[in-house]
Amino acid sequence: MATPIPSTDYLPPAAAANDRPREECGVCGIYGHPYAAKITYFGLFSLQHRGQESAGIVVSDGEQIRQHKGMGLVPEVFSEEDLGRLQGHLAVGHVRYSTTGASHITNAQPFVATHRGSTLAVAHNGNLVNIRSLRDELESQGSIFQSTMDSEVVVHLLARCLDMELDQAIVETFRLIKGAYSILLMTKDKLVAVRDPGGFRPLCLGRLNNGSYIVASETCALDLVEAQYIRDVEPGEVLIIDQQGLRSLHLEQNQPPSFCIFEHVYFARPDSDIFGINVYQSRKRMGEILARECPIEADLVMPFPDSGNYAAIGYAQASGIPLEMGVIRNHYVGRTFIQPTQSMRDFSVRVKLNPIRSFLENKRVIIMEDSIIRGTTARSRVQSLRGIGVKEVHMVISCPPTRNPCYYGIDFPSCEELVANQKTVEQIRDYLDLDTLYYLSLEGLVEATGAPAENFCKACFDGNYPVPPDRDFRKNVLGCGGSTLACPGRKQ
Amino acid sequence: MATPIPSTDYLPPAAAANDRPREECGVCGIYGHPYAAKITYFGLFSLQHRGQESAGIVVSDGEQIRQHKGMGLVPEVFSEEDLGRLQGHLAVGHVRYSTTGASHITNAQPFVATHRGSTLAVAHNGNLVNIRSLRDELESQGSIFQSTMDSEVVVHLLARCLDMELDQAIVETFRLIKGAYSILLMTKDKLVAVRDPGGFRPLCLGRLNNGSYIVASETCALDLVEAQYIRDVEPGEVLIIDQQGLRSLHLEQNQPPSFCIFEHVYFARPDSDIFGINVYQSRKRMGEILARECPIEADLVMPFPDSGNYAAIGYAQASGIPLEMGVIRNHYVGRTFIQPTQSMRDFSVRVKLNPIRSFLENKRVIIMEDSIIRGTTARSRVQSLRGIGVKEVHMVISCPPTRNPCYYGIDFPSCEELVANQKTVEQIRDYLDLDTLYYLSLEGLVEATGAPAENFCKACFDGNYPVPPDRDFRKNVLGCGGSTLACPGRKQ
Amino acid sequence: MATPIPSTDYLPPAAAANDRPREECGVCGIYGHPYAAKITYFGLFSLQHRGQESAGIVVSDGEQIRQHKGMGLVPEVFSEEDLGRLQGHLAVGHVRYSTTGASHITNAQPFVATHRGSTLAVAHNGNLVNIRSLRDELESQGSIFQSTMDSEVVVHLLARCLDMELDQAIVETFRLIKGAYSILLMTKDKLVAVRDPGGFRPLCLGRLNNGSYIVASETCALDLVEAQYIRDVEPGEVLIIDQQGLRSLHLEQNQPPSFCIFEHVYFARPDSDIFGINVYQSRKRMGEILARECPIEADLVMPFPDSGNYAAIGYAQASGIPLEMGVIRNHYVGRTFIQPTQSMRDFSVRVKLNPIRSFLENKRVIIMEDSIIRGTTARSRVQSLRGIGVKEVHMVISCPPTRNPCYYGIDFPSCEELVANQKTVEQIRDYLDLDTLYYLSLEGLVEATGAPAENFCKACFDGNYPVPPDRDFRKNVLGCGGSTLACPGRKQ
Amino acid sequence: MATPIPSTDYLPPAAAANDRPREECGVCGIYGHPYAAKITYFGLFSLQHRGQESAGIVVSDGEQIRQHKGMGLVPEVFSEEDLGRLQGHLAVGHVRYSTTGASHITNAQPFVATHRGSTLAVAHNGNLVNIRSLRDELESQGSIFQSTMDSEVVVHLLARCLDMELDQAIVETFRLIKGAYSILLMTKDKLVAVRDPGGFRPLCLGRLNNGSYIVASETCALDLVEAQYIRDVEPGEVLIIDQQGLRSLHLEQNQPPSFCIFEHVYFARPDSDIFGINVYQSRKRMGEILARECPIEADLVMPFPDSGNYAAIGYAQASGIPLEMGVIRNHYVGRTFIQPTQSMRDFSVRVKLNPIRSFLENKRVIIMEDSIIRGTTARSRVQSLRGIGVKEVHMVISCPPTRNPCYYGIDFPSCEELVANQKTVEQIRDYLDLDTLYYLSLEGLVEATGAPAENFCKACFDGNYPVPPDRDFRKNVLGCGGSTLACPGRKQ
Repeated sequence: MATPIPSTDYLPPAAAANDRPREECGVCGIYGHPYAAKITYFGLFSLQHRGQESAGIVVSDGEQIRQHKGMGLVPEVFSEEDLGRLQGHLAVGHVRYSTTGASHITNAQPFVATHRGSTLAVAHNGNLVNIRSLRDELESQGSIFQSTMDSEVVVHLLARCLDMELDQAIVETFRLIKGAYSILLMTKDKLVAVRDPGGFRPLCLGRLNNGSYIVASETCALDLVEAQYIRDVEPGEVLIIDQQGLRSLHLEQNQPPSFCIFEHVYFARPDSDIFGINVYQSRKRMGEILARECPIEADLVMPFPDSGNYAAIGYAQASGIPLEMGVIRNHYVGRTFIQPTQSMRDFSVRVKLNPIRSFLENKRVIIMEDSIIRGTTARSRVQSLRGIGVKEVHMVISCPPTRNPCYYGIDFPSCEELVANQKTVEQIRDYLDLDTLYYLSLEGLVEATGAPAENFCKACFDGNYPVPPDRDFRKNVLGCGGSTLACPGRKQ
Repeated sequence: MATPIPSTDYLPPAAAANDRPREECGVCGIYGHPYAAKITYFGLFSLQHRGQESAGIVVSDGEQIRQHKGMGLVPEVFSEEDLGRLQGHLAVGHVRYSTTGASHITNAQPFVATHRGSTLAVAHNGNLVNIRSLRDELESQGSIFQSTMDSEVVVHLLARCLDMELDQAIVETFRLIKGAYSILLMTKDKLVAVRDPGGFRPLCLGRLNNGSYIVASETCALDLVEAQYIRDVEPGEVLIIDQQGLRSLHLEQNQPPSFCIFEHVYFARPDSDIFGINVYQSRKRMGEILARECPIEADLVMPFPDSGNYAAIGYAQASGIPLEMGVIRNHYVGRTFIQPTQSMRDFSVRVKLNPIRSFLENKRVIIMEDSIIRGTTARSRVQSLRGIGVKEVHMVISCPPTRNPCYYGIDFPSCEELVANQKTVEQIRDYLDLDTLYYLSLEGLVEATGAPAENFCKACFDGNYPVPPDRDFRKNVLGCGGSTLACPGRKQ
Repeated sequence: MATPIPSTDYLPPAAAANDRPREECGVCGIYGHPYAAKITYFGLFSLQHRGQESAGIVVSDGEQIRQHKGMGLVPEVFSEEDLGRLQGHLAVGHVRYSTTGASHITNAQPFVATHRGSTLAVAHNGNLVNIRSLRDELESQGSIFQSTMDSEVVVHLLARCLDMELDQAIVETFRLIKGAYSILLMTKDKLVAVRDPGGFRPLCLGRLNNGSYIVASETCALDLVEAQYIRDVEPGEVLIIDQQGLRSLHLEQNQPPSFCIFEHVYFARPDSDIFGINVYQSRKRMGEILARECPIEADLVMPFPDSGNYAAIGYAQASGIPLEMGVIRNHYVGRTFIQPTQSMRDFSVRVKLNPIRSFLENKRVIIMEDSIIRGTTARSRVQSLRGIGVKEVHMVISCPPTRNPCYYGIDFPSCEELVANQKTVEQIRDYLDLDTLYYLSLEGLVEATGAPAENFCKACFDGNYPVPPDRDFRKNVLGCGGSTLACPGRKQ
Repeated sequence: MATPIPSTDYLPPAAAANDRPREECGVCGIYGHPYAAKITYFGLFSLQHRGQESAGIVVSDGEQIRQHKGMGLVPEVFSEEDLGRLQGHLAVGHVRYSTTGASHITNAQPFVATHRGSTLAVAHNGNLVNIRSLRDELESQGSIFQSTMDSEVVVHLLARCLDMELDQAIVETFRLIKGAYSILLMTKDKLVAVRDPGGFRPLCLGRLNNGSYIVASETCALDLVEAQYIRDVEPGEVLIIDQQGLRSLHLEQNQPPSFCIFEHVYFARPDSDIFGINVYQSRKRMGEILARECPIEADLVMPFPDSGNYAAIGYAQASGIPLEMGVIRNHYVGRTFIQPTQSMRDFSVRVKLNPIRSFLENKRVIIMEDSIIRGTTARSRVQSLRGIGVKEVHMVISCPPTRNPCYYGIDFPSCEELVANQKTVEQIRDYLDLDTLYYLSLEGLVEATGAPAENFCKACFDGNYPVPPDRDFRKNVLGCGGSTLACPGRKQ
């Protein structure tokens, strides 16, 4: 009967208040549908890969605003009954990615607050890089904070402008904010989508059969609810949808686009079109270009499902080396696990992915991986293949070495933990116990997208950060020390 | 695996934001015990009768502040594991009373917020009567609100003074606040107890075996944890407990005491000493005085367990009429219930309390009740007794007619729903289908406490409100219309 | 989503298979009501005091038989949806009492099995005393057993006779069975109630408004569903209810009645009429007779709620010593508990029942208890009273010393653990740290019931067992050694 | 706190008692490991694809037998704590496949019963075809049944022979039993594996590092626990493992092997070696042979992940047509689902598998499916591809038309629901709205396994049943009418 908040909240001491890793997220909003909450539910369900920690939907019927949030996956958080209570034609939803052990319901989004009788809900994907100074400024004026979310800061800033018209209030607010944000705002009768001038994170607009609007992080959300894709929300655009229809403002732009190229490498779903490019095809091309850049003699090329699947197909087709699915995924792996016994040394790999001994024994194998972060997973996988008698293990990576932290919403580990920040490619190859190791070149990666290099933020590979974060941000938020920005991408 | 917030939150439209009924609550705080969270848990467990909707504990080890809150009873919200995570020597806890259908985790206390790196936790029992103007003022300065709790306003006010010393900040803050409050505040290294100058709600101080301090709503919390009662926190007193020990400030007092006499009638536990008076004994004396004021000829006097038990004992002893326990309580009644079939007409009474037909048939029975609010429960009970052939049903009430709403923390229904506000005693007697109905006089009630009449707030009986609420409060918070204050106590 | 059986089942090794303590239980059956399952639910709810471990209902619509069982209290086991699925006009239900740590779903009743296309459900209250030899006999003919329940043996026996007419099959079956049983049997279109020739356990028949029949362990079940009491099922009676109405057979009776007097002392609900006698009144008379047999000079007489309440009222009225409710019950005590800290010495008493220090200090107190089994609880209670300064503690017990195990369905601890089997009254008084200790005499107890002494089984007091159990039963089931029957009731 | 059995059990009327579809299952047993339950847990986890409805483990420490069963997936049923309680060196486990809406805890295995002090646990994969006559015979001798499981019959039969030596008892028992069975039996100190003379279902023996034995349905279970494969349990073999080690008996064999070829087509995991043949490789060869038998001109070949993956790889490699992963699987699909809105017509396909519009539009696509049962899923998939503008949709099936029910443990729908029993291939092609449809020939399928045709049961394709079922079995168990055996495989 009781429903305690699951994990005991940890409220960090003052100095560390912004010291936590930030997360990728997914957002979805609907305007004009009688079952706005239900459509949002399915949108979030399609975006589940962008965040599995918590989910929330806030809905308005034009008068009253209702919300439901919880820890867990979308189908776990919402029952049919919950959705039935969320009546209204206007909704915003959010899924959040868990990267740390502690999961806090107080950090679940959308963030909702009331100010002078107006209720505002905010769902945010991205990372603000001047969050510390904004928060200091707000606190010096008396604001108090209940969470560590960027969204709470956004609402505080908006509250200060709410004696202006909404349009002006938004422009004034976002003038102060620096960083990556694809944000959905909701009042009791308006849905507002805002994308930062760099457009780091994707955000697209679609239309449902009944004429209602949907705004979502990726186009795969539109597919499930059978909405038609209209266009991306543009970098620096403010899209306001209400009874008058849809209108568009633009934030001052003195900034070129900075699309996150890592969305194509790893994060987005392959059936989405991100920044106008289909992800399945860009990933396949990464494999094709790798085959051209890094030819290897081997018996077969093989992904560890599913992340390397698409580049592996490209590599196989371009190289003529047969593609095989030599490891079998266990589809029943859940989140809680019984500890194995001591004799089960390869447990962490095999519990999910079992390599087929009788097929792989004595073969020369190329493994396709989308990226290497810490290297620990890749290492276990190689070890597991060596253990069943694979003759040669080669590895190809469908992006360059990941050497730098992201300030714009992807939660990489600290520099010290990024294996490519600490080791040369040769050292990594030795560490992973590989016969050969090849990374795709940055030029090859850009070529795979088919778009010009200057459109992308490639900071995790080359260290060039389009929007410099506050000094404190680097130090406190990312825990990489003051010299992070200078941490030089090493040559391959 | 998922732990959704149970009920779908309802965020009211602007005008109605303060329109909800307020609640009684219980608070408990510990300073200086290695298992502060566990002691607080047991304190809250003893105070469960003051609030069954939600429970929360916030704890500090001097550096970090941790919290755990949930919907439900204390033993449902906290597991041994949860308490294990709440490490620290300093804790405040809160139980909250559910009066409305909607229960919101966002309204669970203690309320916790961060301001310039300082974390504050607030647990509140009582009701602020100028909450609306305080909130308007704060919002005009840019504050945003996430809940409808008084505690959130208190934290906002405190945040504005936190560049002062804590002592001064508290005095400045509470200078602005009007109404009833027994509040516990916690910073990372201090426990602060504040009681309003009228002292509406009880708050007492005790000491555990190891020398640590406990502050709690009622003395029954001290009994369970085997703490020794020291004294009540005085009206208008600010008690600060930290490494330097215990020190006391006083808010400016231009106000006599206004102890809530209804705590003695109904709310407090009979084993507590409230305002220095043992509740068991004051209730028993109410029955004795009733026997003197209202003699009735009958075969037996009988409570509906357990609320009328103690006054019934007093009545029986003073009148010589035998006390009987003629209705049997079912101890397994839970909170969720299956709908009865149509044939089960007396279900709502009998599922909890079954009158013994073979014993009560043809008897003349006096029922002792502590109070009558809407009258619906009493009516069903009388009906159920008539149904099994009781010959005469008399009812005596151990307080005067409850005619007026409470602005200080007890959640009575609106004037329209208070049966004694709408009907004369004679009309009530007819409505309840009683042979006779007697209420204890206000003088008799005061006499039962053994304290002077001027010590008490008796507004629910006589309409004299010691601290006048803001006009908006009456209108918006209580929903009784502008004329509420004037709603005249009718003569019996 | 998954619903594992909660506790890990323990299947005992061969020799110990019958070595477990047996339980009290409650049964309820309905014939002819369109909501038979729901009525049974409420009947079981009223009988919850007879068994809190598990609950089950089996229902038939004349063609199909459906069941639902679970561990826990009745409202926890059944949801409105579960009851909705249990469609039919014919139902039997069962609640089971947990006395051991291990609770097994495989032991939940009603027991259901199929034989040659006939489904039988059996709900049983009582204890068979030749269970071991019956089971040996059945196993030698090839039967296998999945539980340790008496009901499973009954079904096996019935299965062997099912080529006879049902009437004859029942008579043949119960001819073989010795011991105490109030059993409800259900086929797809018949409800059968069987009570053993001694009538150890109660079983009564009633009629609902729509003419449908109810058979239940106690009359309180009839009260809640507003059924009219018709009569008790007689000792040795077989009551068959089907489309033809109600008919009655009689098992061969060479046995006088052996009503369990302990049902009146402790087990039955005070609002029930058991063996034709109202329990509230028999308990009150126990107190009156105690006052006559054992006068004590004291300031007050006080029960520990609720078990001693009724005898305490009788004692107070007969002696003129005032009745007080000097200990306050915490109504929120659940089943799982957090371990107290070391400093909380009186925790086990106070968590449920807090004595009022300011009222009891320096008083001479008589405590009324219904019985003393191990003595440990009584000892803690006395200690707790001594701790708050009670001047004299006297104790009166509303039955004689409980010296012998029960073979007929009440689960007393072994002889070694029964304090009155091991110590004289004087030794018990010393052990409990009492000023005086008095037990009601056996004659007084019988007088309180108003029925002749020869109607009752009083074996737990006097060691005269009306139906001698098999030798193996004593040894294996009760764990009291071969000399149990001889264990002599010591003189007071 | 309460843990009700989740679904309301349905006990069928007599005539229908054996009328339910039977299930595939997985079994795993351990002898000689200190953490036998934990190893069994991981074995079952690897076999989860063979049964997702319920899971159970029974364990013995040589003296006591303990069990834990529950509804749901293996990780949902067992907690670390549950496994901790299951102490012993000897264990058998079972997973069961849910094919019907009703899931019953009473049907969860291993089945456990006690007879004359001996406890037997039985875990069964397969189907007995003379179950009805065995059960009739047992019931005529007085047996009662609590479930509809074959295992219960096996235990009854064994109980009748338990005065013999175990070896003889097993031989005597299985002499009576006809059909498909890979059974694990456990007594308190012995693990026994029995495989029917046809060897329909797989069963293999392995050895763990510490010398302990494992017996499991598939070799993938051995991989996860890092056991070494020794050999298959042979058709007609009885393997007894106890303190004396391993010894082998043989049931009388007058029967050639009848390995289930459908295990290779669909059921077994591709990383298992089944009947000595690696499943990944046999499935890939099915695709290669299909490419040879049925050449199609198209732009790409594509599986609907994951079932058609391996044959698709074979087809692509043999035909030179590129393999693509044109539909993207949503990995977060759970078991309970919110109903879609009316506008979401392709919901049932897309919620799991979203075809990539921008990639597939205007392409000529070959879909590889492992089999077509009812045809409804395939039809939705084709529709969904047509809807996004795929130009041509061809389908190839890696087995012949599935025209006949299985009597040996795979739960196909009834003849009427098997699309290939009701329609010609051309009619199926029209029904599915395909451009072309090809099935692999039976000869091609056998060739893909590399084993002689006479080794296999191919009844689902050719209607030749190696072990004829009882007449009643066909009629009552399978619901296909008396003429089922005659239902002629139609020509393609």
